[in-house]
Amino acid sequence: MPVILFVEDEPSVQEFVKDALHEGGYDLTVSTSASEALTLLGGGVVKYRALVTDIHIDGEMNGWDLARQARQIDPTIPVIYITGAAADQWVSQGVPESVLLQKPFAPAQLVTAVSQLLNATVQKAGHSLPETKN
Amino acid sequence: MPVILFVEDEPSVQEFVKDALHEGGYDLTVSTSASEALTLLGGGVVKYRALVTDIHIDGEMNGWDLARQARQIDPTIPVIYITGAAADQWVSQGVPESVLLQKPFAPAQLVTAVSQLLNATVQKAGHSLPETKN
Amino acid sequence: MPVILFVEDEPSVQEFVKDALHEGGYDLTVSTSASEALTLLGGGVVKYRALVTDIHIDGEMNGWDLARQARQIDPTIPVIYITGAAADQWVSQGVPESVLLQKPFAPAQLVTAVSQLLNATVQKAGHSLPETKN
Amino acid sequence: MPVILFVEDEPSVQEFVKDALHEGGYDLTVSTSASEALTLLGGGVVKYRALVTDIHIDGEMNGWDLARQARQIDPTIPVIYITGAAADQWVSQGVPESVLLQKPFAPAQLVTAVSQLLNATVQKAGHSLPETKN
Amino acid sequence: MPVILFVEDEPSVQEFVKDALHEGGYDLTVSTSASEALTLLGGGVVKYRALVTDIHIDGEMNGWDLARQARQIDPTIPVIYITGAAADQWVSQGVPESVLLQKPFAPAQLVTAVSQLLNATVQKAGHSLPETKN
Amino acid sequence: MPVILFVEDEPSVQEFVKDALHEGGYDLTVSTSASEALTLLGGGVVKYRALVTDIHIDGEMNGWDLARQARQIDPTIPVIYITGAAADQWVSQGVPESVLLQKPFAPAQLVTAVSQLLNATVQKAGHSLPETKN
Repeated sequence: MPVILFVEDEPSVQEFVKDALHEGGYDLTVSTSASEALTLLGGGVVKYRALVTDIHIDGEMNGWDLARQARQIDPTIPVIYITGAAADQWVSQGVPESVLLQKPFAPAQLVTAVSQLLNATVQKAGHSLPETKN
Repeated sequence: MPVILFVEDEPSVQEFVKDALHEGGYDLTVSTSASEALTLLGGGVVKYRALVTDIHIDGEMNGWDLARQARQIDPTIPVIYITGAAADQWVSQGVPESVLLQKPFAPAQLVTAVSQLLNATVQKAGHSLPETKN
Repeated sequence: MPVILFVEDEPSVQEFVKDALHEGGYDLTVSTSASEALTLLGGGVVKYRALVTDIHIDGEMNGWDLARQARQIDPTIPVIYITGAAADQWVSQGVPESVLLQKPFAPAQLVTAVSQLLNATVQKAGHSLPETKN
Repeated sequence: MPVILFVEDEPSVQEFVKDALHEGGYDLTVSTSASEALTLLGGGVVKYRALVTDIHIDGEMNGWDLARQARQIDPTIPVIYITGAAADQWVSQGVPESVLLQKPFAPAQLVTAVSQLLNATVQKAGHSLPETKN
Repeated sequence: MPVILFVEDEPSVQEFVKDALHEGGYDLTVSTSASEALTLLGGGVVKYRALVTDIHIDGEMNGWDLARQARQIDPTIPVIYITGAAADQWVSQGVPESVLLQKPFAPAQLVTAVSQLLNATVQKAGHSLPETKN
Repeated sequence: MPVILFVEDEPSVQEFVKDALHEGGYDLTVSTSASEALTLLGGGVVKYRALVTDIHIDGEMNGWDLARQARQIDPTIPVIYITGAAADQWVSQGVPESVLLQKPFAPAQLVTAVSQLLNATVQKAGHSLPETKN
């Protein structure tokens, strides 16, 4: 099963998102800090297929910063931001081709967002993989 | 949970749609008449996140008219039309950025349509909310 | 319920896809050969709403060929390809407006892909049906 | 050359749009009333490839009504609305898959909008034409 | 005519872009520094309809930073980045719903990108303007 | 200027397309046979940014076959097909993410199609280029 990297330090949101993604058939690794998430992404032990991150996470780095650094490590990783109040910052702080979900959202909104981004990424990857041999 | 306003006077379709949306994690308010639905939308007690309406509903107003009036009350509300036979009228009677589902459809088609429209709307809202302060 | 035509000769993938599509509310007919699938499509007894096909299937015809011939029979049929290794051939061998899923994928990726393509097709069909009377 | 049907009763806007579309290589027929435009569309002497209409035109019918009736005659005709002040009515009064241009706009905006809609329509038509033989 | 804000300190690219946008019917204001551009955007004397910026501009702020700050001032402003070498940074440094043009590009690529983004923005604005009255 | 590879053996269409693309600021190399075009693409002396091909060209290979082989050489090359009569074959014979233009078309339709596909490709390339270093 594809593994999603999910960054969240609030237990109730953790549970909600875990249930939603498991229901859709995804595995996930939960991290409670942005810097740990970057270590996991950069480590390369698991190939994470998408990053789902809350905007407000404890530590020096918020979700906007995390996503920018994640895209430097893996330029094609789909990004889904979760937020209660910071939706209006997406246009200036979000990365291209990301999705923002504003709480409260239904489990199906998250599963659909993740699935759409993953389906699009596979085709871009297929699109460009042979490029690397040129 | 996000609340969907669903307008339908046929009990069997009511059940089918209720089950599908609940399965996706949505709450919904069912109304059996277009005029009641407009009253609910305009009342502002609940913030409805999407309108799902059958084309053929009892009363003076059909689903096409209802959606046009609903968009005058809430210009960004996602609209999903359900129909058995009137699919070919969508191009002339539908509102922009709406989705038409022709019966029979699978529960997942409805849930995907609602989720996609909601995800798109949140971002447009985030896109434009600060505009109002200018 | 809408019926999907699914072409696959590997039992484990058959089970996985059947469970995923049933969960989303779809019925499906499973065929283990491309030529049988074309007979079913051309027979017109059941109106298949989408074609889901593995790229590697036993017999003279692979999934790429099958999809091209299926589109000659039903030009609007949504096509979803499933593959383990041939993703990079999609850009040269795929048909327009198709989706490629690379294994491993989550059930929700398949259900979302099928639902999106079906929702889009209904509207194009509604868009063009009256055309036939001109 | 493809012929565009353009409905406008203000001479200065007529000139501007004519120049822009000619520059892009389009022919156009200019009509000053919605009812005349519908007669031309329904007459079938010329195959109009798109409808460009001002929202405010003299007579009983405005641009919103004209487009709805035009889509009943030709369900796939691309629609571009031009308006100075009525942009906020598009979400409730526009037809699906139409484009709204708010004055002032650059000639290139109109040419790009017309070209994009025409390119999309050709493919949908190719997509669905053989359907009519089933 | 719609006015575009264009930020570039290289005279040859200035000329090329000015000619391309004038040909498409756009007016433009050229600024050679990011901080001046932000002053112009924030001043509100002219309503700029899009921001076209080189990534490499003299001063403390590059094009990526400029666009983020511009979107804080005007959250719906379309952004087009121009770059010779930094195209691969777009996925981590770009803002959502922006376009990147890599040199060399044809004048028509720039005009099409600007026109598409403007056409999309007008409709989102129409979509959300009445929202502000709720 | 970006160079387009254009395959056409009919002199009048050659002239029309050359004028249209030059007007949009593109350079182009015209070839009258599919096999010559593949040699040029594979030779790698010039980096062609898009392939524009007629469906009916003299020789053993038609435009559909040419595009499939071109995508094997350059998986991200944008493809635009030109045809008078074969538009309905696009759904079964076209490659993914291609555009079909049916004659007669306006110069602006071709320029817009080429520009849109090029703008999209640059971003996908930027999206995936660093991938090759992983």
